Amino acid sequence: MGVEERRQQLIGVALDLFSRRSPDEVSIDEIAAAAGISRPLVYHYFPGKLSLYEAALKRAAEDLASRFVEPHEGPLGSRLLRVMRRFFDFVDDHGPGFSALMRGGPAVGSSATNALIDSVRQAAYDQILSHLGVDRPPARLELIVRSWISLAESTALIWLDGRRIPRAELEVQLVHDFAALAAVSAAHDEEMSVLLRAMLKDEPGEGPFGDLVVRLIALAS
Amino acid sequence: MGVEERRQQLIGVALDLFSRRSPDEVSIDEIAAAAGISRPLVYHYFPGKLSLYEAALKRAAEDLASRFVEPHEGPLGSRLLRVMRRFFDFVDDHGPGFSALMRGGPAVGSSATNALIDSVRQAAYDQILSHLGVDRPPARLELIVRSWISLAESTALIWLDGRRIPRAELEVQLVHDFAALAAVSAAHDEEMSVLLRAMLKDEPGEGPFGDLVVRLIALAS
Repeated sequence: MGVEERRQQLIGVALDLFSRRSPDEVSIDEIAAAAGISRPLVYHYFPGKLSLYEAALKRAAEDLASRFVEPHEGPLGSRLLRVMRRFFDFVDDHGPGFSALMRGGPAVGSSATNALIDSVRQAAYDQILSHLGVDRPPARLELIVRSWISLAESTALIWLDGRRIPRAELEVQLVHDFAALAAVSAAHDEEMSVLLRAMLKDEPGEGPFGDLVVRLIALAS
Repeated sequence: MGVEERRQQLIGVALDLFSRRSPDEVSIDEIAAAAGISRPLVYHYFPGKLSLYEAALKRAAEDLASRFVEPHEGPLGSRLLRVMRRFFDFVDDHGPGFSALMRGGPAVGSSATNALIDSVRQAAYDQILSHLGVDRPPARLELIVRSWISLAESTALIWLDGRRIPRAELEVQLVHDFAALAAVSAAHDEEMSVLLRAMLKDEPGEGPFGDLVVRLIALAS
């Protein structure tokens, strides 16, 4: 194998191990064994475990960011639901590593890892704004989108801790949460109210946002 | 001064400095100068900056947790609003230090600091459950309470980044967000629906939860 090919293979093997257990618990020896090479050869490609961890995290971050990309077609609620499904697929595939990373800690908290996490959050933010068709978001819209992204993260972390609620329910619920946070903000602010109306005007009754309204009316009655 | 008195004074001086700037930027020399003692004397009481930082953070964590305590009297929405005001007072007083801590990073992310953050989250969680009068929360209630706590954190962090929205508005909005997240969950689950009805049954029309309903009806019409 060429150098770059070997590096990429090692990153793949490491990502797999770092995903399935907390990165603290994964040793270079184990990565070498899984890749079928010697420990010194791993160090030939990566100076240490942290650099290999950061390379694996970078690949995972790019993978996750790519899952946020969704065609600009059809109802907004359905687009967001498809993204939530792909987000939970990712979380499901990388559970222990995702938890360890997002809960922070000495082994996984470096400037580089924090910058990668922020880059994924920014990718999510940019995608949502582009689907809303908003170039220069007012402060209240920025707040809702960014705080909803943090809600999605914490919901996924809580789900991983025991998986006591079916993930399909949480995917729909997060789409509904987005609408609910937007509605609360719109209830406080005229500019947000105009944005919310624009957001909902093409939503079909049978889409996720329409479904929420039906459910809330049933709840209230 | 006695040893313990001097330690407590140093913690107070350090907390003040760590609150007003990112902890990375605060030196032991500066803490010594602010306390009016020599640098070696600081080291006499604390082995290094990290131990002093952790002691300051412990004091801040206890302070914040104490602000969550609220009498079990009056409408739930008003209780939560008073707690939100005290939470934003705290965030306002410790802005740069709060941001640096909650955004993570090498200087502030240790097992001890993460454990302190988690203890404050747990204190908030326990308080909310006690006000809801729930001993053994179903998984969906635990999800809502914990994810709302993370929403309050991220809302405060976004507020600190430019303070573009009046904090009083965000305090009310977070109370409304709690109700909205609970309503979405109740729209999906019968047990949550029963809990939500119990939660809202004594809420007055002029309280924060009643206010939300009025605003949402106005928005929908």
